[in-house]
Amino acid sequence: MIYLDNAASTAMHEEIVKEMLPYFCEHYGNPSSIHKIGRVAHNAIHNARKKIASLINAEPEEILLTSGGTESNNAALYGIAYSKKGNHIITSSIEHEAILEPCKQLEKEGFKITYLSVDNQGLVNPDDVKKNISYDTCLVSIMFANNEVGTIQPIEKISKICRQKQVAFHSDAVQAIGKTLIDVKKLNTDLLSISGHKIYGPKGVGALYVKKGLEIIPFILGGGQENGLRSGTENVASVVGLGKACLLAKENFEQNISYLKKLRDILASKIIVEIPHVTYNGHQTQRIPNNAHFTFFGVNGEDLIIKLDENGIAASTGSACSVMTQKASHVLQAMGFSHEKITGSLRLTVGLNNTEEEIIKTVEIIKNVVKELREVSPFKAKYGF
Amino acid sequence: MIYLDNAASTAMHEEIVKEMLPYFCEHYGNPSSIHKIGRVAHNAIHNARKKIASLINAEPEEILLTSGGTESNNAALYGIAYSKKGNHIITSSIEHEAILEPCKQLEKEGFKITYLSVDNQGLVNPDDVKKNISYDTCLVSIMFANNEVGTIQPIEKISKICRQKQVAFHSDAVQAIGKTLIDVKKLNTDLLSISGHKIYGPKGVGALYVKKGLEIIPFILGGGQENGLRSGTENVASVVGLGKACLLAKENFEQNISYLKKLRDILASKIIVEIPHVTYNGHQTQRIPNNAHFTFFGVNGEDLIIKLDENGIAASTGSACSVMTQKASHVLQAMGFSHEKITGSLRLTVGLNNTEEEIIKTVEIIKNVVKELREVSPFKAKYGF
Repeated sequence: MIYLDNAASTAMHEEIVKEMLPYFCEHYGNPSSIHKIGRVAHNAIHNARKKIASLINAEPEEILLTSGGTESNNAALYGIAYSKKGNHIITSSIEHEAILEPCKQLEKEGFKITYLSVDNQGLVNPDDVKKNISYDTCLVSIMFANNEVGTIQPIEKISKICRQKQVAFHSDAVQAIGKTLIDVKKLNTDLLSISGHKIYGPKGVGALYVKKGLEIIPFILGGGQENGLRSGTENVASVVGLGKACLLAKENFEQNISYLKKLRDILASKIIVEIPHVTYNGHQTQRIPNNAHFTFFGVNGEDLIIKLDENGIAASTGSACSVMTQKASHVLQAMGFSHEKITGSLRLTVGLNNTEEEIIKTVEIIKNVVKELREVSPFKAKYGF
Repeated sequence: MIYLDNAASTAMHEEIVKEMLPYFCEHYGNPSSIHKIGRVAHNAIHNARKKIASLINAEPEEILLTSGGTESNNAALYGIAYSKKGNHIITSSIEHEAILEPCKQLEKEGFKITYLSVDNQGLVNPDDVKKNISYDTCLVSIMFANNEVGTIQPIEKISKICRQKQVAFHSDAVQAIGKTLIDVKKLNTDLLSISGHKIYGPKGVGALYVKKGLEIIPFILGGGQENGLRSGTENVASVVGLGKACLLAKENFEQNISYLKKLRDILASKIIVEIPHVTYNGHQTQRIPNNAHFTFFGVNGEDLIIKLDENGIAASTGSACSVMTQKASHVLQAMGFSHEKITGSLRLTVGLNNTEEEIIKTVEIIKNVVKELREVSPFKAKYGF
């Protein structure tokens, strides 16, 4: 199988699994226990936290451990909203559902949410952030890179505006982490969401960077772990795995990015050149290095995925999360795409385990499958397939 | 090391780890993806859900997957409270912090919470539940078995009262699961919390049983996983682990219980007989089979834990979660224990990995350590140590 759905989830790195294993049957203590086996678990969490912090140039005590990117996003939004510093939140119309759905919930509770529009490359205009900030704005939440089209937002500019206006700034960096430089000190962000399973770590673990001094209301309450900000017995093995994933992402940062970019660029350029009636969607340069997003006109994306699956290629039309709901992508709609352009979309996201041979083979298969589907397309006459 | 803190966390069963391993590097798909590797993950979740349901005689679709017992408890409380069927919740004064802290939060939001008292064995009186239910009561939440003293509550009676009064009933069964028979159909409970790492499964995964037809407001929002009730990419490997843990707990139910009970009874009877000025706390018979809880008068529990740790025994004064806060146990306070009785308390919780030899050795070590500590006790004259 050729796996080109690395934005949905990645295969775990074997070294990460190896690092986690002792925490299942050997160092199984509860980090809150004061005896030796508890302290071993406690120290493991401490060391992992340092590695997670290091990847984004944060301090270890600024890293809040969570059950994943979705919880991190929920915790950030509710954490600021309920701290009652204002009744207005600014976000974008192309955020992940883990931002949009809590926003809808907050709207029901009386908060006002501004959903900023994006241009046809998926970019938020920082001036729009500036224009919409009012005395009542408590939070701006703009994703670092989009999960469907890969566009990287002008985070530094947006963060700067928020700093000037003294409004907290959160960024969902689940897709960006390890794929573009993120330095929270330099960017001056207040909150940033991270997930383990998008960077070759385990599923079910993530982190929320919370800038020192920023007050947030805790989301999950109980035994008071994570300085009272996130209760529940720490997921020791998975946190160790997330730590190792962050360490590897940092150590191999440049080479990972150039490798992903090389594969992605071969994929994109070959498809654009060799297949007619195709568009390469998203920002042409300002995008994460693993993402390629296309529209094959006259083809139904779902049919394409199924045909590719039959041919041993794992791909996606967009976000994995929205597949089940069968709704047209809100991201592509916000980018102003026509129904036809949305229908023919395909997301291919490369990973570190992919090879150049796989990419070449993939292009050949896509060429044949697209041709085959266009033979029976209702748009055959329109485009002269 | 002799590990006698199995109520805080258990060593994972090697068969469970083995079952999880393929889901790290091989079957790493996102369960929401429609391609083959996504479907493999989806099916793994489906099969695990059946095993989890089977342990408590629920239907698979009644199992909501969570990041652990704490999230399950939070999701149950907020899930019912926010569904606006009433403004009053009844719980007990000896619940875990994962119940008490969300209750405090709900109080801040205007809910009225009744904290039922318990007797000196840690029992809630079902009549108190009955008496306190009003037209405005939306939920009764009473733990199945206490995490400190192990007392099993009269859940069937309480559940029956809630049924008659048409009030939803939740039970935190984190400590009880696998250690006493739980049949949600027979008990007629509405909600029940489960955790993986207390039953030889992984940390960071749990479940909430939600009776078919019961409406709860989702706690974590996003991509709409778990029928919209719990968003976030499913923690596939850990869910598979939880499934296996539940299967093993069911298959070996009788023998596990009798083995734990045998070890615990040896431990308790030897300590009571061989050490003077000791009480065996909690209910003498109505308790989970792995729990033994004592007071050694004239001894400081913290000192005892440290001395035992030096002698290779992992024990606890009470809940692992509350160790960090250094607060006197709210459970023992609610049971009417004097400050002195609370101070000298020790919890020993046996597990399937313990042996009879370990238990015998433990008693000898405790005997010596208690004697040693009593030599320098300020209560030496009082008790004539």
